[in-house]
Amino acid sequence: MTTLSGKHIAFLATDGVEESELSKPWEALKEAGAKVTLVSLEKGEIQAEKDNEKTRTFPVDDLVGEVKVEDFDALVLPGGLQNPDTLRSDKNAVAFVKGFFKAGKPVSAICHGPWLLAEADVLEGRKVTSYKSIRTDMLNAGARWTDEAVVVDGNLVTSRCPDDLPAFCEKTIEQVAKANQRKVA
Amino acid sequence: MTTLSGKHIAFLATDGVEESELSKPWEALKEAGAKVTLVSLEKGEIQAEKDNEKTRTFPVDDLVGEVKVEDFDALVLPGGLQNPDTLRSDKNAVAFVKGFFKAGKPVSAICHGPWLLAEADVLEGRKVTSYKSIRTDMLNAGARWTDEAVVVDGNLVTSRCPDDLPAFCEKTIEQVAKANQRKVA
Repeated sequence: MTTLSGKHIAFLATDGVEESELSKPWEALKEAGAKVTLVSLEKGEIQAEKDNEKTRTFPVDDLVGEVKVEDFDALVLPGGLQNPDTLRSDKNAVAFVKGFFKAGKPVSAICHGPWLLAEADVLEGRKVTSYKSIRTDMLNAGARWTDEAVVVDGNLVTSRCPDDLPAFCEKTIEQVAKANQRKVA
Repeated sequence: MTTLSGKHIAFLATDGVEESELSKPWEALKEAGAKVTLVSLEKGEIQAEKDNEKTRTFPVDDLVGEVKVEDFDALVLPGGLQNPDTLRSDKNAVAFVKGFFKAGKPVSAICHGPWLLAEADVLEGRKVTSYKSIRTDMLNAGARWTDEAVVVDGNLVTSRCPDDLPAFCEKTIEQVAKANQRKVA
């Protein structure tokens, strides 16, 4: 069985995050043995949504301006509309995303989460998927877009929507485990 | 005084439209003498929002699959997040936007409305503004982006956010009036 014991995963999200795209990978990674941390823009709680209706809240663990890429082994970017739209306007959030690519650490983004990848300018030549509405933004950012449940390209895992969460979680766990093996080797 | 008597303006919007970005240009164009029509994806009403909270609804006049660019003299694209995100996935909506550019008719887009311009692939070399979060998407679509209340480039008027509505309405009316003069000349 895959164990991610000793691995520390950052989830970057804010208000308007799609609930299942935060909660499902969170639970899956925790169950696999990883420590998970919710990084956001402000202290307190963030408001989740499902299909543009407000649902539950999630407590923020750390602020994006106060953490470092070195503190984490991988990054997860959930979707929702307002969530990445707000995060991409925050220079600390964009620098945080860029930092994981510079360090070659695993990054997993789902639905509208890949907007942050366009903002961080890390998509040139990358094979990705995303929610269908932002396909053109992905292509214009230099990505090669494909309509699949999950796409793995180097350190990057992307998926289209909540229906793809089982494949998204599986590949994210695989990538974090591989990064672990590379470190040990 | 500018009169738009005899001019027919299409507003293309769906659920999640930012209320003031629909209602203010709507009232301004109507007051200037134009006929205004709300074009959408489905019959009934669309749900407006203000700062991601639901507000009032607006009755839909016509369906985008059942109208033609020739029926209108100009197009207005309000913002909101969910609104353009949904519209850009609809091929009739994207073709409708493209049609106004092919015909050289005035198009005015505000806030997140310009996402539809990226989708319609009409931004190459165009000077535009938009809501700050989609600046990168505009640049990647080939636009020259600038941080101004209102930008006019040929038939295209763009603005950043609800605060810019007075300038946006003024320039939209000017452009429709000019198109009128061109037709008469």
